[in-house]
Amino acid sequence: MEHTTPTSSRKKEHLRICCERAIEAGDAGFGDVRLAHNALPECDMEQIDIGTRFLNTPLGSPLFIAAMTGGHPDTMEVNQLLARAAEHFNLGMGVGSQRAALENPDLADSFSVVREEAPSAFLCANLGIIQLRDHGIEWAERAVEMIDAQAIAIHLNPLQEAIQPEGDHDTGGCLEALRNLCREFKRPVIVKETGSGISAATARDLYGAGAAAIDIGGWGGTNWAAVECLRASDVGLARLGEDFLGWGIPTVVSLREVCSTGGSVIATGGLRSGIDIAKSVALGACLGGMALPLLKPAMQGEDELFAAIDTIHRQLRVTMFLTGSRTVQDLRRTHVYITGITRQMIENSY
Amino acid sequence: MEHTTPTSSRKKEHLRICCERAIEAGDAGFGDVRLAHNALPECDMEQIDIGTRFLNTPLGSPLFIAAMTGGHPDTMEVNQLLARAAEHFNLGMGVGSQRAALENPDLADSFSVVREEAPSAFLCANLGIIQLRDHGIEWAERAVEMIDAQAIAIHLNPLQEAIQPEGDHDTGGCLEALRNLCREFKRPVIVKETGSGISAATARDLYGAGAAAIDIGGWGGTNWAAVECLRASDVGLARLGEDFLGWGIPTVVSLREVCSTGGSVIATGGLRSGIDIAKSVALGACLGGMALPLLKPAMQGEDELFAAIDTIHRQLRVTMFLTGSRTVQDLRRTHVYITGITRQMIENSY
Amino acid sequence: MEHTTPTSSRKKEHLRICCERAIEAGDAGFGDVRLAHNALPECDMEQIDIGTRFLNTPLGSPLFIAAMTGGHPDTMEVNQLLARAAEHFNLGMGVGSQRAALENPDLADSFSVVREEAPSAFLCANLGIIQLRDHGIEWAERAVEMIDAQAIAIHLNPLQEAIQPEGDHDTGGCLEALRNLCREFKRPVIVKETGSGISAATARDLYGAGAAAIDIGGWGGTNWAAVECLRASDVGLARLGEDFLGWGIPTVVSLREVCSTGGSVIATGGLRSGIDIAKSVALGACLGGMALPLLKPAMQGEDELFAAIDTIHRQLRVTMFLTGSRTVQDLRRTHVYITGITRQMIENSY
Amino acid sequence: MEHTTPTSSRKKEHLRICCERAIEAGDAGFGDVRLAHNALPECDMEQIDIGTRFLNTPLGSPLFIAAMTGGHPDTMEVNQLLARAAEHFNLGMGVGSQRAALENPDLADSFSVVREEAPSAFLCANLGIIQLRDHGIEWAERAVEMIDAQAIAIHLNPLQEAIQPEGDHDTGGCLEALRNLCREFKRPVIVKETGSGISAATARDLYGAGAAAIDIGGWGGTNWAAVECLRASDVGLARLGEDFLGWGIPTVVSLREVCSTGGSVIATGGLRSGIDIAKSVALGACLGGMALPLLKPAMQGEDELFAAIDTIHRQLRVTMFLTGSRTVQDLRRTHVYITGITRQMIENSY
Ligand SMILES: Cc1cc2nc3c(=O)[nH]c(=O)nc-3n(C[C@H](O)[C@H](O)[C@H](O)COP(=O)(O)O)c2cc1C
Ligand SMILES: Cc1cc2nc3c(=O)[nH]c(=O)nc-3n(C[C@H](O)[C@H](O)[C@H](O)COP(=O)(O)O)c2cc1C
Ligand SMILES: Cc1cc2nc3c(=O)[nH]c(=O)nc-3n(C[C@H](O)[C@H](O)[C@H](O)COP(=O)(O)O)c2cc1C
Ligand SMILES: Cc1cc2nc3c(=O)[nH]c(=O)nc-3n(C[C@H](O)[C@H](O)[C@H](O)COP(=O)(O)O)c2cc1C
Repeated sequence: MEHTTPTSSRKKEHLRICCERAIEAGDAGFGDVRLAHNALPECDMEQIDIGTRFLNTPLGSPLFIAAMTGGHPDTMEVNQLLARAAEHFNLGMGVGSQRAALENPDLADSFSVVREEAPSAFLCANLGIIQLRDHGIEWAERAVEMIDAQAIAIHLNPLQEAIQPEGDHDTGGCLEALRNLCREFKRPVIVKETGSGISAATARDLYGAGAAAIDIGGWGGTNWAAVECLRASDVGLARLGEDFLGWGIPTVVSLREVCSTGGSVIATGGLRSGIDIAKSVALGACLGGMALPLLKPAMQGEDELFAAIDTIHRQLRVTMFLTGSRTVQDLRRTHVYITGITRQMIENSY
Repeated sequence: MEHTTPTSSRKKEHLRICCERAIEAGDAGFGDVRLAHNALPECDMEQIDIGTRFLNTPLGSPLFIAAMTGGHPDTMEVNQLLARAAEHFNLGMGVGSQRAALENPDLADSFSVVREEAPSAFLCANLGIIQLRDHGIEWAERAVEMIDAQAIAIHLNPLQEAIQPEGDHDTGGCLEALRNLCREFKRPVIVKETGSGISAATARDLYGAGAAAIDIGGWGGTNWAAVECLRASDVGLARLGEDFLGWGIPTVVSLREVCSTGGSVIATGGLRSGIDIAKSVALGACLGGMALPLLKPAMQGEDELFAAIDTIHRQLRVTMFLTGSRTVQDLRRTHVYITGITRQMIENSY
Repeated sequence: MEHTTPTSSRKKEHLRICCERAIEAGDAGFGDVRLAHNALPECDMEQIDIGTRFLNTPLGSPLFIAAMTGGHPDTMEVNQLLARAAEHFNLGMGVGSQRAALENPDLADSFSVVREEAPSAFLCANLGIIQLRDHGIEWAERAVEMIDAQAIAIHLNPLQEAIQPEGDHDTGGCLEALRNLCREFKRPVIVKETGSGISAATARDLYGAGAAAIDIGGWGGTNWAAVECLRASDVGLARLGEDFLGWGIPTVVSLREVCSTGGSVIATGGLRSGIDIAKSVALGACLGGMALPLLKPAMQGEDELFAAIDTIHRQLRVTMFLTGSRTVQDLRRTHVYITGITRQMIENSY
Repeated sequence: MEHTTPTSSRKKEHLRICCERAIEAGDAGFGDVRLAHNALPECDMEQIDIGTRFLNTPLGSPLFIAAMTGGHPDTMEVNQLLARAAEHFNLGMGVGSQRAALENPDLADSFSVVREEAPSAFLCANLGIIQLRDHGIEWAERAVEMIDAQAIAIHLNPLQEAIQPEGDHDTGGCLEALRNLCREFKRPVIVKETGSGISAATARDLYGAGAAAIDIGGWGGTNWAAVECLRASDVGLARLGEDFLGWGIPTVVSLREVCSTGGSVIATGGLRSGIDIAKSVALGACLGGMALPLLKPAMQGEDELFAAIDTIHRQLRVTMFLTGSRTVQDLRRTHVYITGITRQMIENSY
């Protein structure tokens, strides 16, 4: 019991809600995106190389295991399994926010287990921008050390902060803190949203501050307004969660906006299959991340998790075959059709 | 009983219908409008200044309590509560049409109570354009004096006049009357619709006549065709109400048209949350007014009304935070996505 | 019994089916058309002049009683009532195809009754283009004489001919016949469709041949494929009717196309209120015709028919008031918003 | 029993599934296409010439009996009936993949029966691109000889190969094999898809390799992902079939893309009436092929099959009449309206 802090037990509560309740909302836009079929692919599907590189690191596929958990003893097992998958498939993986373990070092093993299980995987430490601002580079360094990470992801979640009872409502000084980190830090800094997306304007600020990559975290998948709405004991906060269910930039729109500014991008938020990963790459992403679709099998066991990843990889492989893409690089040249509201929003972007 | 006149008892009937029956119709267009999320807001949500200025008056927020009632003894209490809220939150507030009290001065206290409860609020007197034409500046002066108003709103409601059994069907000479008023009057003149919106062409006429501001009163919220339809004893008039349920320019479309002509604008008609107020401001409005959403809590009591306004302000504040707007001025620079029919109509406008 | 011919009893069957069964299909497009509200109309609604001129004839309103019936003794009463309405409201009126009475003069009184009841109304004789081609100007002259008509309407109905068991499948020589008629005839020639609309290309041919006006007869109202489908005894023909339920150019699209070629136009096909008539005029029509919506009250009695026309006129008058149109001419200058599929089809037209 | 091979019994299984289960998916786009009505067709419907030419061969109509079956004794009867129809109506006809009979010549009579029943029809041999690559021109020659075909169709079906347990996943060298065939072969080579469509880019490759015509085989009709999904014993493969139900280029979009590259085209995939054939021709196709809509009546008997073709021809004839097209050539000049998602995808194509 002495192992839990408010931050820590919140983490556990999140996990439970995410697995048992309906916490997805909106439309990320993948239904409005179609890839051009190549009827004469000229390649051997089994020889297709789904491997890729991200921040100079070779990875087994563009599937990224998005930041989810850690910080509570009960989350240990999930992190263990996700890490095993990262190691087995050579996938990039992010851990959940390390704040709890930075506040209370006794909780560090729910994170460090990840590196134990995945000695050679590309791991991303995770810290909120608020914690970065308040505790400076020192916390970023401790977070990276905790899991011997190759990179750190700084997450932005102003919506969740705003509607969360214990949320930090003051984000002043954050960009400055980010700029300092990027200047001083020995590892690449990824900046990520967690469900509301990144606009073209914000992307320019972030790359300008020195971010090595942006993780979209767009609207249309896991929805923190929905989560907070379910968590809220106070009816006013529940209502506020509901009011903002629709808030955010759909992943596909955000992806196009961020890509138009020119930097490296991970697409997350509502990707639900290897086809969606392929669409994300065709739209300009380096990697396509998933959180919720991996959490559910990970709660069931290793076999289920590995099978889920196999399925995603098969979907990706078939899609690459059907677009005549031997490599992930080729996939980026696939012709894309965009229709509907997604198209209208993208037209508005420029 | 000697206190009521036909105009007066019509007022009371309206209030009752508005609270008990479904009198909203159509789509104001806010669902087709999305604001760009700012993932790195760089501000303290609690320090955000939701205050604004309108006609050189500082106001507590862009929420305007739209013209609703007065003119019947039974409407007194509602006006009292609305006025208390206006005073408490320093909001602009309009009273309902003062015609009844101008015809029968015994009814004046259902209006003057507003000033008593709100000694320092920005109050708007209210008079129909027909009454202005028929009774001249004198009535406008008496209306302003009755509540010691800072401004007067002249309402246009040709649809209601047209389908109301007792309606005035002749609007000739009204623009001339308005021009005279604007030239001679000591207070700013706001011209407002009541549910059918203002087109670009009409806006040019109104600003040309000297209007200090236009209140959109667009289609998609409270619907007078619906109200008249429910009031009608005669089946022919009920049918006529029904035929015109769809008549009017949606608020968002009208807002864009009026703003394109360059003057000061209040958006009303179907705004249902602080998010809608924020969208209105981002689309160019100075204030966002609400009638029906405030009437219902006002009929329940002071606590309910104040809580409703708190909720709206919280929604507005969160939205400002999530768009990185420290002030209402900042909010006007937020990037806006417009889709669907609303977008098509706006494309048609220019 | 000796009074009926195959053509004649078909007429009666049509009338029965039209009144009892669902014979409307599709979407004429009026829901995609919105007129700009004028909040300050500057006119007296009761003084609005809904009168108009068509082919140099002053008419009581732009409502045209579209060609429907005659040719069977049982249709006499309906024609009588429609004619009385034409006379009373000074409306233009077309009779149904006079072929039956031209084949069998004993049936002529079901048509000539129209002139008896409407001594001063603007009446249109009616003849199919096939009959014109086969019997020449003589039949056109006899048709006009039969009702002392001011003009003749030549109807085109290739869809109905094609799917009707007794249909004439050869339309060769028709344009030539039309050209001759227009050159030689003493009265203006109107060419009309009956539910499939007129394209820009066909309009150019028709005006080129000398037509004085075109009656759209567009898709989206009374649907002859539906009627034939219900009439068909043979399952193959019923099926063919069904296959072509969707065939035709929607009235609004056709109206825009025909107006773009520059001639005089009557809009018919799916107009269902005075608002639709106003929209038609704003889109460029001279008159707006209705068939089915007048047939039903006409089968009930004079009071019902007159009341229906009063309602249509009131809807038109209110719409004119709300667009600030004192005259039908003014209405043509109203700003029109067009959205949806109708807009896409119109964009395709040019 | 010695007559069946794995390939062969797969053929039979396909036929059964296709007839009994729901194996259509998606939307080929014909609902988004409308042809301009010609109200004054100036022709005799019964004299309309629905005949056309394809690869210098006169054909009774643009209806092509798309490749379906053969290769199993039980498919013989269906092929026999289809061939009789081809002969009777002078239609072009393709047989199903001849691989089974090339592997096991004992099965050849389920194909050669087609030429026996249709001594003078235009017949297309059929071979998969994989078989062509693996067995070279010799198999193509044997396939053509087996039915004394006028042309050979090489089918591309990478989706089916990819999700079929026994599928060939390596398509390397196929374009080269095709190029060789086109250079050396004595008969015209048609390249066809089987349900996923051909993109503009692929079309350029295929025509560049020497293809005489392309058969679209677009998305929106018979869906092989659906078929494989129903056939799959393994839940993983069934799931994979489901994932790719939505994969492919809709027939209308594909048709526009391929036509823009300039060659001869057969439209197949979701054509369901003679109206769809007419739309295909108006959009640029030479012929419109159907598989599933002919299979069902062919399983019932000759009368049903001939009646089905009569219906399709009547629909085509009526459509030609209503567009004023005396010949199939004329039909190609008909004005086409395109709306909805189909239009958006086509706009994306160029
Ligand atoms: C249970 C759960 C916990 C999460 N925790 C974090 C976190 O601690 N830090 C973070 O940056 N993102 C966190 N995320 C956000 C994800 O990394 C991701 O951006 C988002 O869920 C969208 O992806 P999805 O729709 O595939 O779930 C979490 C997501 C889930 C589902
Ligand atoms: C009960 C009620 C009474 C109203 N009375 C007036 C009035 O007297 N004068 C006026 O200008 N507008 C009047 N309005 C119109 C409102 O000021 C406002 O323009 C319109 O209702 C649209 O806003 P809403 O959708 O938020 O209700 C009234 C509205 C309501 C609901
Ligand atoms: C019962 C009935 C009979 C009709 N008969 C004729 C006719 O004989 N000649 C003709 O030109 N149009 C005829 N029409 C077509 C109408 O004139 C009109 O063009 C068409 O019905 C579309 O209008 P609606 O949707 O208002 O019915 C008839 C329509 C109806 C409903
Ligand atoms: C039962 C069946 C078997 C088929 N077999 C073949 C085949 O062997 N070779 C081929 O090229 N296409 C084959 N096809 C594909 C068709 O030729 C056609 O391209 C496709 O079905 C789309 O047309 P539809 O929607 O009208 O069925 C087959 C189709 C069906 C329904």
